[in-house]
Amino acid sequence: MFETAELGHRLSKEEYRRIEPELRADLLEAQFRLAEDKRSSLVLLISGVRGAGKGETVNLLNAWMDPRHILTHAFDTPSDEELERPPMWRYWRKLPPKGRIGILFGSWYTAPIIDRVFKRSGAVDLLRAIEETNAFEKMLSEEGVQVLKFWFHLGKEPQRKRLKALESDPATRWRVTERDWDFFKQYDRFYRISEDVLRATSTGWAPWIVVEGENPEYRSIMVGKTLLEAMRKRLDVVDSAAPRTEAAPPILRPVDDLYILDRMDLAAAVAKADYEKRMGKLQAELAMLTRDPRFAGHNVVCVFEGMDAAGKGGAIRRLTASLDARLYETIPVAAPTDEERAQPYLWRFWRHLPRKGRFTIYDRSWYGRVLVERVEGFCSEAAWMRAYSEINQFEDQLTRHGAIVLKFWLQISKEEQLKRFQLREQTRFKQFKITQEDWRNREKWDGYQAAASDMIERTSTRDAPWVLVAANDKYHARLKVLESVVAAVKARLAEDKGAGGA
Amino acid sequence: MFETAELGHRLSKEEYRRIEPELRADLLEAQFRLAEDKRSSLVLLISGVRGAGKGETVNLLNAWMDPRHILTHAFDTPSDEELERPPMWRYWRKLPPKGRIGILFGSWYTAPIIDRVFKRSGAVDLLRAIEETNAFEKMLSEEGVQVLKFWFHLGKEPQRKRLKALESDPATRWRVTERDWDFFKQYDRFYRISEDVLRATSTGWAPWIVVEGENPEYRSIMVGKTLLEAMRKRLDVVDSAAPRTEAAPPILRPVDDLYILDRMDLAAAVAKADYEKRMGKLQAELAMLTRDPRFAGHNVVCVFEGMDAAGKGGAIRRLTASLDARLYETIPVAAPTDEERAQPYLWRFWRHLPRKGRFTIYDRSWYGRVLVERVEGFCSEAAWMRAYSEINQFEDQLTRHGAIVLKFWLQISKEEQLKRFQLREQTRFKQFKITQEDWRNREKWDGYQAAASDMIERTSTRDAPWVLVAANDKYHARLKVLESVVAAVKARLAEDKGAGGA
Repeated sequence: MFETAELGHRLSKEEYRRIEPELRADLLEAQFRLAEDKRSSLVLLISGVRGAGKGETVNLLNAWMDPRHILTHAFDTPSDEELERPPMWRYWRKLPPKGRIGILFGSWYTAPIIDRVFKRSGAVDLLRAIEETNAFEKMLSEEGVQVLKFWFHLGKEPQRKRLKALESDPATRWRVTERDWDFFKQYDRFYRISEDVLRATSTGWAPWIVVEGENPEYRSIMVGKTLLEAMRKRLDVVDSAAPRTEAAPPILRPVDDLYILDRMDLAAAVAKADYEKRMGKLQAELAMLTRDPRFAGHNVVCVFEGMDAAGKGGAIRRLTASLDARLYETIPVAAPTDEERAQPYLWRFWRHLPRKGRFTIYDRSWYGRVLVERVEGFCSEAAWMRAYSEINQFEDQLTRHGAIVLKFWLQISKEEQLKRFQLREQTRFKQFKITQEDWRNREKWDGYQAAASDMIERTSTRDAPWVLVAANDKYHARLKVLESVVAAVKARLAEDKGAGGA
Repeated sequence: MFETAELGHRLSKEEYRRIEPELRADLLEAQFRLAEDKRSSLVLLISGVRGAGKGETVNLLNAWMDPRHILTHAFDTPSDEELERPPMWRYWRKLPPKGRIGILFGSWYTAPIIDRVFKRSGAVDLLRAIEETNAFEKMLSEEGVQVLKFWFHLGKEPQRKRLKALESDPATRWRVTERDWDFFKQYDRFYRISEDVLRATSTGWAPWIVVEGENPEYRSIMVGKTLLEAMRKRLDVVDSAAPRTEAAPPILRPVDDLYILDRMDLAAAVAKADYEKRMGKLQAELAMLTRDPRFAGHNVVCVFEGMDAAGKGGAIRRLTASLDARLYETIPVAAPTDEERAQPYLWRFWRHLPRKGRFTIYDRSWYGRVLVERVEGFCSEAAWMRAYSEINQFEDQLTRHGAIVLKFWLQISKEEQLKRFQLREQTRFKQFKITQEDWRNREKWDGYQAAASDMIERTSTRDAPWVLVAANDKYHARLKVLESVVAAVKARLAEDKGAGGA
């Protein structure tokens, strides 16, 4: 891909002066329309070799356009808060909201390429990174974030000359570090690996644009025009009233309409005395486990889903009762705030991810996408269909970073729900828990059961399993939740012991 | 204050069992009303001596109430991201939004008390911390955040016994550290200094509640009842339709209606050739200054205010043109988001504070409180009157943490504004810059001029001065801005040299 960026592309100063004023006005206008429209954002990745004009170009873009609607961010060494979350967290937190442009120096490409060049990672790691990146950018694109990836290229000899020139000028000497020369020594390996990565990640939805870096006039106009076109296309897509041409995905239903949840045995029940004894024991066990020094290297993410009145709140409180309040956070998931609506739907869950050694308990979760949003038609069929794999990838990032992920589906019968609704209406401090919406949701019972069954089938993975909890009996349900958490934490700490042992 | 917490307060287990169920239901109900009402929040500070039941009480509160509306946070060692901001930043970022309860272990009291006990700070430092704390909590209270400060006390002998008991039980041994005994050795000094601090910060709007920690039943009911009463009072205040009884603050106007802005000479102008030469020189100078290694220890906060079309955007762009895009952020201040509206008004500015070595440029700012909000009547007279000192305290925290704070008021004449409005309406890519609102604001010209004059008088301080910029001539205005920034940065770096020299 780089050969065409060693052709000696150039524009004369005169051509530049002729093109620039119009381009600048057009960029400003497109930027303003994007800001007004507020339905999409652009992310520009600025990558490539040292000395190829990355910094200069970004400064120019900020001068051409209105810097108040641009968020420029350079990713340097991760902070300690970043190191305690999965690697993608630092990029999620810098995503521009809809209507704005984000310019990122360094990106999710930086570490995979450098690690591979210096042989800190293997070929398989790189392949996995590529696959994940493609999925991530595809998701961004579907969510209204246009990713534009610029690679600034210089041939080997021009780069050497450029570094030498910078070094010999007292005004720019500070810009060349020992690290730059270390990298330059690996030029050929960088070339090969970068080219492989670029080829494998240059997709229809997030293409790479390789820019020859030698001639400032050429590279500036090249980047400016590409950006302009991308903004205009984004606005056109959004403006166009034409229906999307992509085919609706096929939905596979069991031909006999029998779902996994229909087959659950909900009769299981536990006597009160037995419950209290076992609950006390489990809570004490969990309390001890969380004080194990090895626990500090993990965190636990628990997701609670289930029909209204299935007992999520009660189960959560039995779980938190055994935890130190400083170590857990409970996130009630309701309607998104306007800052959250201006971002891809997973953003509002990423932002709450805990540091290590903590519990985060989501009372309802990202599964809203394939439950309420699907059933109520709040998002398109294509959107919730792709959510299954987006969610699996999200959870995969959590577990690979050491999190213990547990997802509970609390299942009650339709009759049991009715009983509980009626009871709530009669109890003083439970009245607030029952609303008209609950009754409306109840009418869609079958739709929710089908959606939940699909969800369980498509997102129960070895590392982030769904635990199906028969919840007609509250005692049984709460014990099952605690038992699952205790077992999962215990198993993980035992693995650590195994790994750390002699 | 502590004597009454060594009286041996206690409740029997029977009394506890009698009171608890009702209290619990009441707490849950009040918490729910607070969450629905969404007009105020509560912050509970949990402080006091080791072993007095702080953790147990917080866990209990989380069990009694709905943990989904409680944010519990323990302040441990500051993260690197926190260390690069003024000390209060970490507390601002954990403030609960309206409708929720925040429980903070450790608080803005922790460091001042400990530093004084171990003689890392002097008596004057402590006095200043007290004064600032009172102002901060007063502001929170006015902004709808009720602060409840609990101090858990144990006498010296009971504390020794408690630590010994914890140590001798294998299940709790881990809870007692060497640091606890180091602190215990300073018991008398802690007692004296804490008591001084508590007495000086127990205010009408944020009183301390000292809780004797020995008897679990007593302390639990004591905290629960206090919290319940506070929530109910908060809700009553908000519910009551009665007018506030506080007197409207007196506003002092110059009796001759002559304001500082009226006296500005707006005739200053610079020829284009002269402007270009001087601007180039200033930009180069600023570029070099920001690369000085000493600059990494500071940051620069620039505020731009002025009437519409005064040239704020143009001045900002001449400033950023000389900066590396990675080192600055421009914050356009418009209507707050809903997350921002759920917090005290300064919160949305705190959240954008940069790490060290960066520029943050606010295009409009916290001064909106005493400009647009005052003139348009968006907040009460009392609210904008207290804002002057709240703002001064905010900026004082910035400058003491090493920030260079510069505030620019760009002044144009009413005639010049009219000319620019008309020009904008005629220019293709400037049309979006002129709206009906601009014309409406223009009608309130005199009100804005009076408000701006008051603002300048009350908030121009030695460390964070207002720079009045005659802006009828854009060239003159932009040079003045650049000159001021260059001079301020240069002066600060020179101070560092002085301080660091032999």
